[in-house]
Amino acid sequence: MTRVTLEAVNALGASEFRAAFGGVYEHSPWVAERTHASRPFPSVTTLAQAMAGAVAAASDADKLALLRAHPDLAGKAALAGELTAASTAEQAGAGLDRLTREEMDRFRAANRAYAERFGFPFIIAVRHWGKAHVLAAYARRLANDRDQELRAALAEVDKIAFLRLLDLVEPAPTGRLTTHVLDTAQGRPAAGVPVELHRIGADGARLRIKSGRTNSDGRLDAPALAAGEMIAGRYEFVFGAGEYFLAAGLPTAAPAFLDRVPIAFAIANPEAHYHVPLLLSPWSFSTYRGS
Amino acid sequence: MTRVTLEAVNALGASEFRAAFGGVYEHSPWVAERTHASRPFPSVTTLAQAMAGAVAAASDADKLALLRAHPDLAGKAALAGELTAASTAEQAGAGLDRLTREEMDRFRAANRAYAERFGFPFIIAVRHWGKAHVLAAYARRLANDRDQELRAALAEVDKIAFLRLLDLVEPAPTGRLTTHVLDTAQGRPAAGVPVELHRIGADGARLRIKSGRTNSDGRLDAPALAAGEMIAGRYEFVFGAGEYFLAAGLPTAAPAFLDRVPIAFAIANPEAHYHVPLLLSPWSFSTYRGS
Amino acid sequence: MTRVTLEAVNALGASEFRAAFGGVYEHSPWVAERTHASRPFPSVTTLAQAMAGAVAAASDADKLALLRAHPDLAGKAALAGELTAASTAEQAGAGLDRLTREEMDRFRAANRAYAERFGFPFIIAVRHWGKAHVLAAYARRLANDRDQELRAALAEVDKIAFLRLLDLVEPAPTGRLTTHVLDTAQGRPAAGVPVELHRIGADGARLRIKSGRTNSDGRLDAPALAAGEMIAGRYEFVFGAGEYFLAAGLPTAAPAFLDRVPIAFAIANPEAHYHVPLLLSPWSFSTYRGS
Amino acid sequence: MTRVTLEAVNALGASEFRAAFGGVYEHSPWVAERTHASRPFPSVTTLAQAMAGAVAAASDADKLALLRAHPDLAGKAALAGELTAASTAEQAGAGLDRLTREEMDRFRAANRAYAERFGFPFIIAVRHWGKAHVLAAYARRLANDRDQELRAALAEVDKIAFLRLLDLVEPAPTGRLTTHVLDTAQGRPAAGVPVELHRIGADGARLRIKSGRTNSDGRLDAPALAAGEMIAGRYEFVFGAGEYFLAAGLPTAAPAFLDRVPIAFAIANPEAHYHVPLLLSPWSFSTYRGS
Repeated sequence: MTRVTLEAVNALGASEFRAAFGGVYEHSPWVAERTHASRPFPSVTTLAQAMAGAVAAASDADKLALLRAHPDLAGKAALAGELTAASTAEQAGAGLDRLTREEMDRFRAANRAYAERFGFPFIIAVRHWGKAHVLAAYARRLANDRDQELRAALAEVDKIAFLRLLDLVEPAPTGRLTTHVLDTAQGRPAAGVPVELHRIGADGARLRIKSGRTNSDGRLDAPALAAGEMIAGRYEFVFGAGEYFLAAGLPTAAPAFLDRVPIAFAIANPEAHYHVPLLLSPWSFSTYRGS
Repeated sequence: MTRVTLEAVNALGASEFRAAFGGVYEHSPWVAERTHASRPFPSVTTLAQAMAGAVAAASDADKLALLRAHPDLAGKAALAGELTAASTAEQAGAGLDRLTREEMDRFRAANRAYAERFGFPFIIAVRHWGKAHVLAAYARRLANDRDQELRAALAEVDKIAFLRLLDLVEPAPTGRLTTHVLDTAQGRPAAGVPVELHRIGADGARLRIKSGRTNSDGRLDAPALAAGEMIAGRYEFVFGAGEYFLAAGLPTAAPAFLDRVPIAFAIANPEAHYHVPLLLSPWSFSTYRGS
Repeated sequence: MTRVTLEAVNALGASEFRAAFGGVYEHSPWVAERTHASRPFPSVTTLAQAMAGAVAAASDADKLALLRAHPDLAGKAALAGELTAASTAEQAGAGLDRLTREEMDRFRAANRAYAERFGFPFIIAVRHWGKAHVLAAYARRLANDRDQELRAALAEVDKIAFLRLLDLVEPAPTGRLTTHVLDTAQGRPAAGVPVELHRIGADGARLRIKSGRTNSDGRLDAPALAAGEMIAGRYEFVFGAGEYFLAAGLPTAAPAFLDRVPIAFAIANPEAHYHVPLLLSPWSFSTYRGS
Repeated sequence: MTRVTLEAVNALGASEFRAAFGGVYEHSPWVAERTHASRPFPSVTTLAQAMAGAVAAASDADKLALLRAHPDLAGKAALAGELTAASTAEQAGAGLDRLTREEMDRFRAANRAYAERFGFPFIIAVRHWGKAHVLAAYARRLANDRDQELRAALAEVDKIAFLRLLDLVEPAPTGRLTTHVLDTAQGRPAAGVPVELHRIGADGARLRIKSGRTNSDGRLDAPALAAGEMIAGRYEFVFGAGEYFLAAGLPTAAPAFLDRVPIAFAIANPEAHYHVPLLLSPWSFSTYRGS
């Protein structure tokens, strides 16, 4: 996948811009057209916000047309191979191209109920979810009233657009992934904790991409992922809690309640700072998206 | 592995008891001898406590002899195949039978430094740890003064004894594993959360042994492990946070920061209650050994 | 304040019911009228839900009339003494009857901006908030679109109605307040922790209403508040962490980082179970609404 | 209280140094004598460590003499007014000069039991604790063996010495107090949260010494206490959680479960950095000593 730079994007003329980004919003090149004037974009995030802003500023009729331009999930167009390339890849990412007969029937019934209720197809940024997730979302969103659901569907359309933009444009080098381990039993940074970072593939395959140890402030000396290494997707930190507490001389059971502590999380925006700290005692831990 | 019942243990005569449990404390059958009178034992835990109590009540000379009866880790006796069966299995469990030349040298140097300083071999309940852990423990314990280290070494001897007893005697049916998921973003039990429990083998292999969903109180309807299913070792809960928050209609990123949340932990005492709750928001979670 | 029992409520005829509860929704006795048929009510909570359901089922015109029946906060009717008794007390509860000239101007400007934008007065369940809170809420809600704001305003109307019902009817004896202290440094219940419960008055005055110590499971032997003692309002638990860790022999600084740990919270529904646990180490703690 | 500067301390000759710090370790000027050669001291912390190091390096006889030089708590010397000035103030700080007859008897019995068991008086850094704490500590420490207790008593002697040094010497300007509020419901810094800092006197009196709001990164623009403002003692942060979540438009109960969130903590070392963050959702919060 070769992506263009933001510099190149910002140099595009109107028709080139439309050609490049006309498909970001499904069958709705007008979104790109109305965004071109907002150049220059310092980041994919601001480009995505500008496109989302163009949608938000559009008429109700345009918004509805945008929603209706989307295909059904696991629907007839998908079976007939008539989806856009982007939609095909996204539905495959959630395994919707490999449904059993019975699952297919459930999707079809859900699509029908949804379309009857709201008058437009069910839309969800499906790429990183599995089938179970998508069916859970149907149930929830059928309970919305129409106004809430319009808002929810448009929010999903914006998420899909952002994911598509990340396929097309090189992100700005503003993102990074960091961590910090605090020993809450002793009230101080946890130094010398082994840390690994794994990238988790769409198929669940793990690839260890970094390993190191925390320094005296409980941090890695460099970001776990520097700007150039930030890729949207799933990751897992693994912290060597057992080894750390053994070296710290804190009494533990045999085997220790906590040994290797995995923290699974996803990066949705590679231009953002993800701080994923660990508050750790021999018998408890917490994590959160920090700053 | 066939294990005897507690009922059978409590019926043993003195010499049978010595025969059965004389090897629980390395080359020190006197510990079993001094424990026999404390029958009946309602649990392996109380049997282990009685044996540990016999050690604690012994003379300083007896304690020292007990420590000195232990082999070096990865030492000459191990190489020569002269360990007790229990010690052989335990050292293999930590991979100490598969050291590189260089690791072997590090162990030998650590053993020598330790023995010079304290006058007895380095002892640690090694079965569930890896090499890195054991070397971390050496460094720490060399910094103890002699009195602290005697205490630390005897504590490890007691842990080894407990693990050996679990190999010999069927545990009492008092243990169980439970969980509870709280939604801290909404201040209520998280209902309908998919939960899986995996057993993790010594080689890291995963076996899914349970799956279910939380009920309206955020709990599983039955213990994740009932008394008869409790086996000391490593486990991993996996909670379907992404699916839950999608069904709850809480706005998340695409992909969600938290999707499948693994919680890795170990059960050291199969007769105890392990409560491993999850406090969960779309952006943070905590766990701890509860009650 | 003498309150009627649920039993008495359930025995009321239609006109008595209207007389009793016609003022629960401001100047809108039709809500009570449409609720009478749903008797019997096992709890104030279900009575409130039935009234809220009557509003939800009403026409858009009725809903708008309901919103417009509310007075401005700190507005002309308040100055002229023309509020309902309930509104007078509620506005006084937030200190809106004691505004400075300058604050009065801010409220007036906010009321005007809000009414221009939405066509009905700003409504918020004000009784337990201060002035700063209310002004913060204006700013936020002015950013809503009309549909979101209708929903937000009706939600506040329902909260006001519930608080008014609690003034009129004795709650069902289903509520209670409990706690549980876990020692996350040692992975076990914290036994012997001193616990106090204070009720905090509208003026901030503190009244200690319970004190005790946690038992071996880290809990109080009886609920901190039993059903008959549950009153909506503000509370504070104070946990003797310093004394506990001193007795546990865990090394701490002098003075200890954590000594008396206050946890301030409010009970909004006296018929509900409030579980307010404490996860505690010498250097950290967490609390949450549990179950 | 006028304190000397570290610069002045570092310029002292041996006999002046002894005169200034001879009383830091009770009736044991030899500790100061053996520390003088270690000048210069960049901080009170390093000065205290040097004195503690001199004790650690002393003979067993010297250590025992040091312990025996301490008076009984609430003992005969105290009644007779024969304590050193430092001891008098410290015992008064814990209220030991205002015991009831019955409490006096409990202390006397505890002192006798302790002295019989260990051969030296019970010592604890008492200044910031209350009577209940001290009695809890007796019970715990009577359960130690002699070697553990020698270690525990010497650790307390070092804490007392550090507190006395802080009375005598101006701390180095290396300390500060900071905070950081994370919104764990929304996964981002909590901006605009009202924050107050109170100093809590020995008698429980509160003095508000700072107030502000968090910036867009969830932090205060300046330290809550800058180096020159760091004084050992008790503090309380109060965070305006209710106002923040109202402004954020997160649905809450009326009254909100969490409104004003107090976090009580102590600063023991004014030369250190205390980071006291708050992880906050509408229904839960955590805090810890961070870095």
